[in-house]
Amino acid sequence: MADPMRIRAALAGDETTVRVLMSHVMEPGTRRDAAGALIPAHFIKDVEATHNGKVVLQSQFTGSVAQNPFLSFKFKGAAKGDKIVVKWVDTKGDTRSDEATVS
Amino acid sequence: MADPMRIRAALAGDETTVRVLMSHVMEPGTRRDAAGALIPAHFIKDVEATHNGKVVLQSQFTGSVAQNPFLSFKFKGAAKGDKIVVKWVDTKGDTRSDEATVS
Repeated sequence: MADPMRIRAALAGDETTVRVLMSHVMEPGTRRDAAGALIPAHFIKDVEATHNGKVVLQSQFTGSVAQNPFLSFKFKGAAKGDKIVVKWVDTKGDTRSDEATVS
Repeated sequence: MADPMRIRAALAGDETTVRVLMSHVMEPGTRRDAAGALIPAHFIKDVEATHNGKVVLQSQFTGSVAQNPFLSFKFKGAAKGDKIVVKWVDTKGDTRSDEATVS
């Protein structure tokens, strides 16, 4: 299984800024190895963020997204102590879910 | 039409960080006015970012995303001078497309 995501969720005023750093090779599937063979694609496709179980953001990545993807966004309606869960699924069907508490 | 997005795309090493600040009311559709009537939903649903015409990120927002949404992400494969285009569509079918140059 991939390494955990690093997730920060910080409330300021009525907006919560979520910063997510994912750990993933993000191999685009278009690169070749030293022998000239294509390196198979292996990248995060779908990312979903929930706040207390309610979806606040969904995102689709392509093979162009950088290794160890970074994603940041803001949403409204959270309070300190609320739970933020981020989940991703990659092209091999691997998945990872991690959480953070709004602070 | 909505105000333009503010888009920054900065290359560092082989990664380009894109920061997008959208101008939108992001009315969730669950709030009531002073008379108790529901205020109709009006929020950005879909966001797409392209690099030289190739999609690098797609995102779906919900009514929970904050007013004047902020979104940031990184991708690989860009060079200085390349064009980044960000486009959104909202729940009323309004759309806006803006661009930035990688610097």
